[in-house]
Amino acid sequence: MNDLQRIMEVILQTKEVAIFSHYHPDGDTLGSQIALALGLEQKGINTKMINKDPFPSTFKFLADWQRIKPLEQFFELPDTLIFLDCATLERSGYADSSLYRGKLTINIDHHISNDNFANLNWVDSTAAATSELIYDLLGLLQVKIDSEIATALYTGISTDTGSFLYENTTPTTHRVAADLINRGADVNALRKNYYESVSTGKLQLLKFALNNLCFTCNNQVVWIIIDEKTFQEAEATDADAEGLINYLKNIAGIEVAMVFRIYPDQRTKVSFRSKNWFDVNKIASLFGGGGHPRAAGCLLNSNLGESVSKVIKVVEESFLTKT
Amino acid sequence: MNDLQRIMEVILQTKEVAIFSHYHPDGDTLGSQIALALGLEQKGINTKMINKDPFPSTFKFLADWQRIKPLEQFFELPDTLIFLDCATLERSGYADSSLYRGKLTINIDHHISNDNFANLNWVDSTAAATSELIYDLLGLLQVKIDSEIATALYTGISTDTGSFLYENTTPTTHRVAADLINRGADVNALRKNYYESVSTGKLQLLKFALNNLCFTCNNQVVWIIIDEKTFQEAEATDADAEGLINYLKNIAGIEVAMVFRIYPDQRTKVSFRSKNWFDVNKIASLFGGGGHPRAAGCLLNSNLGESVSKVIKVVEESFLTKT
Repeated sequence: MNDLQRIMEVILQTKEVAIFSHYHPDGDTLGSQIALALGLEQKGINTKMINKDPFPSTFKFLADWQRIKPLEQFFELPDTLIFLDCATLERSGYADSSLYRGKLTINIDHHISNDNFANLNWVDSTAAATSELIYDLLGLLQVKIDSEIATALYTGISTDTGSFLYENTTPTTHRVAADLINRGADVNALRKNYYESVSTGKLQLLKFALNNLCFTCNNQVVWIIIDEKTFQEAEATDADAEGLINYLKNIAGIEVAMVFRIYPDQRTKVSFRSKNWFDVNKIASLFGGGGHPRAAGCLLNSNLGESVSKVIKVVEESFLTKT
Repeated sequence: MNDLQRIMEVILQTKEVAIFSHYHPDGDTLGSQIALALGLEQKGINTKMINKDPFPSTFKFLADWQRIKPLEQFFELPDTLIFLDCATLERSGYADSSLYRGKLTINIDHHISNDNFANLNWVDSTAAATSELIYDLLGLLQVKIDSEIATALYTGISTDTGSFLYENTTPTTHRVAADLINRGADVNALRKNYYESVSTGKLQLLKFALNNLCFTCNNQVVWIIIDEKTFQEAEATDADAEGLINYLKNIAGIEVAMVFRIYPDQRTKVSFRSKNWFDVNKIASLFGGGGHPRAAGCLLNSNLGESVSKVIKVVEESFLTKT
């Protein structure tokens, strides 16, 4: 859907908007949120910035981050609500649609899975990041992209592309990045606070992982099991666990990587990645999960030993019939 | 020095050139070498590609890499020799100037430390990579940048900027990258073969490092000691050891990272990195080494215990007087 024209008209006629980013916030949802808020304020529009979760310390170099608060801390919502980088309304953390009765909702996103949940929707999955779309929108609104806005947008684009490395990176991504650096984007702050700031929790999980790698299928399949005790001892957060599977996938010769995370109630979250050809979405689907051919996940209710061996067996069988 | 105009004239008048890249080759020296060779061949100029060391397996997705060979495997050298990404003649691995008697030497590089060793020199330290300069040169020579040349140049630029993350990344870097993707640069091949291909040796060294981190100065200084036994057990190469120090520097809260590598003869190579303010060049200089404020190194002749404790003591003293 592309209601961009109508979205611009609405924005230019309003006095105040609330901008939502998604829970478990990342650089793109926060960068696009802050950039849009600062940009609209240049046009004399008041903005409220809403996020359900605490602001991540790695992004505290961004301007005005202290203004982002949970919905409960605002007295009332304005009539125009903009959701950024949320593929569904639920992703905002405020899924109760009665909250939005009588309001105009706007959905700006780059996820192909976006369900066009709002009154007006601008979803463009060719964009590497929602921040790329906000860059376009601010240009169309004739907002001056100053260094604070540039830093926020650059953060969104850089983090959502794994620093211009993932497949979503296009010539446009690089051209926008060039312009943002020209306009004063603080790439050093991003590098030091985000890329060069590995938390102790992440470090401890990585150490555990490297000491406990399991291999099968001629060392082309690798996995680790993280139980709650390990997780607690590492003093790790969910965010710390997030990038871990990439270290496994990036080992030379590996085609499939898996992380089994055992929760205290014995449910087991399985994350899958593959490098070149193995369809992990198919495996995850067999266990009630899903995703993409190269990245998928599922949640198992059975207890540890059972879950792991079941999944490994299915992966092995599928792997060996393909090779 | 900027003899670019003269370099173009010479190249356009010659029938054959030899192109040298530096020993311990990286993505930039090899990418610029292959791109220049393929480009000049479009102009009807024969090229020989010379490198002292074996070709690294992570870059074997580049076109024509098999043509790169040590000097000894060529019967004779043509009259025009081009050195790429070599700050000194020694860096080519062939420092004996008698080799070049009666030849015209050309030096194209982006290192600020370049000593303009050749007859004609084009040294531009504002370029993020030598590949950025070769991109300009091929444009001026009206070479068609096809997908093979684009992949080689993109590899040079991406690897020398840590995937567009280091301080040397400029708007020009991103604009060139955009154009190279447009022209068919195979970013996926680079990602899979280089960034997502961590060797077993590197993995074992990282595991050893995480299990043996030493901290001082309130956890702001970190180091590890790698002796020859560890190195052998990891089945590691020098290339495997290279990026290791960045993992240490990237730990949250770390200002100074050091890797002590003990060679079989007990000489100790010390690598230093700092994140924000600590001048590691000053420390390295005290021990006969050098570098930059954020990255430096030195080689110690004394035996293990002595070397490490001496360096740590000096770092601690310097650190504590500054904080």
